[in-house]
Amino acid sequence: MLNAQIRKKKVVIVGAGFAGLNAAKKLSNEDNLSVILIDHKNHHLFQPLLYQVATAGLDPSDIAVPIRGEFAENSNVVVHLAKVEFIDLEKQKVTLLNSADPVDYDYLILACGAQHSYFGNHSWEQWAPGLKTLEQATEIRHRILSAFEKAENETDPEMQKRYLNFVVVGGGPTGVELAGAIAEISRKVLVNDFKVINPALAQVYLFEAGPRLLADFEPSLSAKAKKDLEILGVTVLVNQKVENITQHGVFYSDQLISSESIFWAAGVQARQIPTTPSLQQDKAGKVYVEPNLTIKGFSNAFVVGDMAHVETTESKIVPGVAPAAIQMGLHVAKSIVKNKNEIFHYYDKGLMATIGKNKAVMQSPGKFFKFDGRIAWWAWLLIHVLYLVGFRNRLSVLSQWVWSYLFSKHGSRLITNSTWENN
Amino acid sequence: MLNAQIRKKKVVIVGAGFAGLNAAKKLSNEDNLSVILIDHKNHHLFQPLLYQVATAGLDPSDIAVPIRGEFAENSNVVVHLAKVEFIDLEKQKVTLLNSADPVDYDYLILACGAQHSYFGNHSWEQWAPGLKTLEQATEIRHRILSAFEKAENETDPEMQKRYLNFVVVGGGPTGVELAGAIAEISRKVLVNDFKVINPALAQVYLFEAGPRLLADFEPSLSAKAKKDLEILGVTVLVNQKVENITQHGVFYSDQLISSESIFWAAGVQARQIPTTPSLQQDKAGKVYVEPNLTIKGFSNAFVVGDMAHVETTESKIVPGVAPAAIQMGLHVAKSIVKNKNEIFHYYDKGLMATIGKNKAVMQSPGKFFKFDGRIAWWAWLLIHVLYLVGFRNRLSVLSQWVWSYLFSKHGSRLITNSTWENN
Repeated sequence: MLNAQIRKKKVVIVGAGFAGLNAAKKLSNEDNLSVILIDHKNHHLFQPLLYQVATAGLDPSDIAVPIRGEFAENSNVVVHLAKVEFIDLEKQKVTLLNSADPVDYDYLILACGAQHSYFGNHSWEQWAPGLKTLEQATEIRHRILSAFEKAENETDPEMQKRYLNFVVVGGGPTGVELAGAIAEISRKVLVNDFKVINPALAQVYLFEAGPRLLADFEPSLSAKAKKDLEILGVTVLVNQKVENITQHGVFYSDQLISSESIFWAAGVQARQIPTTPSLQQDKAGKVYVEPNLTIKGFSNAFVVGDMAHVETTESKIVPGVAPAAIQMGLHVAKSIVKNKNEIFHYYDKGLMATIGKNKAVMQSPGKFFKFDGRIAWWAWLLIHVLYLVGFRNRLSVLSQWVWSYLFSKHGSRLITNSTWENN
Repeated sequence: MLNAQIRKKKVVIVGAGFAGLNAAKKLSNEDNLSVILIDHKNHHLFQPLLYQVATAGLDPSDIAVPIRGEFAENSNVVVHLAKVEFIDLEKQKVTLLNSADPVDYDYLILACGAQHSYFGNHSWEQWAPGLKTLEQATEIRHRILSAFEKAENETDPEMQKRYLNFVVVGGGPTGVELAGAIAEISRKVLVNDFKVINPALAQVYLFEAGPRLLADFEPSLSAKAKKDLEILGVTVLVNQKVENITQHGVFYSDQLISSESIFWAAGVQARQIPTTPSLQQDKAGKVYVEPNLTIKGFSNAFVVGDMAHVETTESKIVPGVAPAAIQMGLHVAKSIVKNKNEIFHYYDKGLMATIGKNKAVMQSPGKFFKFDGRIAWWAWLLIHVLYLVGFRNRLSVLSQWVWSYLFSKHGSRLITNSTWENN
């Protein structure tokens, strides 16, 4: 079916994250190209705001758009909901799971993104979900809200304390934002909801193995973020490696934090797709690519976004952030249109992270400017709304933020179960 | 914990649907009463709009509010998230699942609502989910959207046809609204999303065992609803009993509609709670109550809402609709405040059902007025927004409806899975 179209040059894009979606958009008006965009989810996800879904500030549909909807007007883009099983780079064929017909291509763009890595400790996942998908965000929300409910119903003070312990592992932007948001909802949003417990007594712990939070930021902003988190009531533990995570809680330096609410933001690994020939990868699973983002030896196959190991001119690795993914996606789309593979230059747009209401840190490209506090927070808000895909989502997110800002109420505090039968 | 409060008269309300929530609200300012509102979900659900969540028009949090949030300002109302296991009416004690301490009461209000009934055919449920909870609505949405995705990926024309067959069983308001909404999204919302299939070729079947749709409405409105559905492309089969539902589809009169997307709106049964002494119930599981809504022999125990079998002065049974539940909840709350059990009079507010954009039917109390088409549809919209609990939800629903109305786009077309691990 997919192969049966009029003979145009065929571009297969695997993954509709920031890199893949933007590549497809750039190619969507090229009439001499036929684009097949493959993803195993039906939606593009605005990952930078996932932590707000996890902490009941936003709804899943506020930060996700159906991929098909983005290309409804573009007859040369076909969206295909499927999992890729295998790619033959030599025969230029993509094999899909549960499908006999491989999809052939003239150009390939691999943009499958990253998922969590537990550094080999697979058993930790069940006790400490990561935050990369809507499903995980909903699960984390479920665990956070249920913990308060369990504490409210509990009569044993030890167990009650356990339910009110929250642990976030990993002091990058996701960990900082998640820890800050949990502290904030416990102190501001939920505080009047419960009559037996005081939700403000919730303890939030943030573990970071390195010497400071937000390692990619300027040290002064790391310090500011730590201070802001502590003001919100978060206990920040830097230089502190987690040794084990079990049903009992988090073990470190011969100590245990007893908790059922542990969240993982400590490491990511690029998603793996079997190919022939196999691809050279770094230890985070990222594929080493040429400076023009092609796979060595295959000038028609590109790897972009979090899946690509690319170095900047200063020999630093391009970070796994949305602006980098967007730039790479657009770059390879341009290379395909021009039929000429040019060297990719990463343009650093700066870094930002939010800690809580009126609390954020940001630095400009080249670190010329640094901001924190209220200015950084408003800038963060503005930029995130502007970058949100889809006009409707922008309106919805903006109105929910205004609502939360004015009334400290979160609208999405629903606990739903994953089973539906007689529920 | 719950029993350890200052000695006021204690009212235990089981269920935070329309009846229970309104009873609790009415009692929330009575300082000499202490109210315990028990529900096994953390949210109150606006059930009349569930079908819009199922058909991707609204988000779960648009039609549900956290129960705790409704009573944050009322110190005499304690919300308790728990399942009731057993009630001893003589000892005035409610036993909760997984809790050693029973909750005692001076007054009891049972308001547990209804769930789907498959008339003894339990095996049908897995193939034909009902629509009573957020989880079920999300499941139905998942099945509808996934069916189109499967059809798009399918090369066998027989299978493709099967994926595009949708069956709704039951021609009451829920069935009519669901069938109309499925037809409408296939014809108007999804029509540009797919490049291989034409979603407008989806077949929607609506089964009704009785002689007409919307049996509680005037016959002329039933006819109008049928005609409107047919204009939208729904095949309406009245006087047609479903004989079996299996993985193959729906069997009736020696025929089979091959389908994976079957939805059940044919029958409800009151939720069951074991009590001593046991309660007299009708064949739909509703509890026979006295005209003042008490349980016979227990002047301090009330049954309200969909759980109660109450007859009007014309010996008709009070219908299982939201206005009736609200009226009953308020009535018993008043009886408790006045310490005097008065006879309940049901005030019929009329009936309404919507079929699609600009298509609805409504009749006034006593059937003096009937409306259909655009006027009825706008009235339906207005009334549903006004009755929605919570200012934020009203705004959000209203803006999404305006959006859909203008652009025929639905914002919530997300397929999410029920598992989160490495997903």
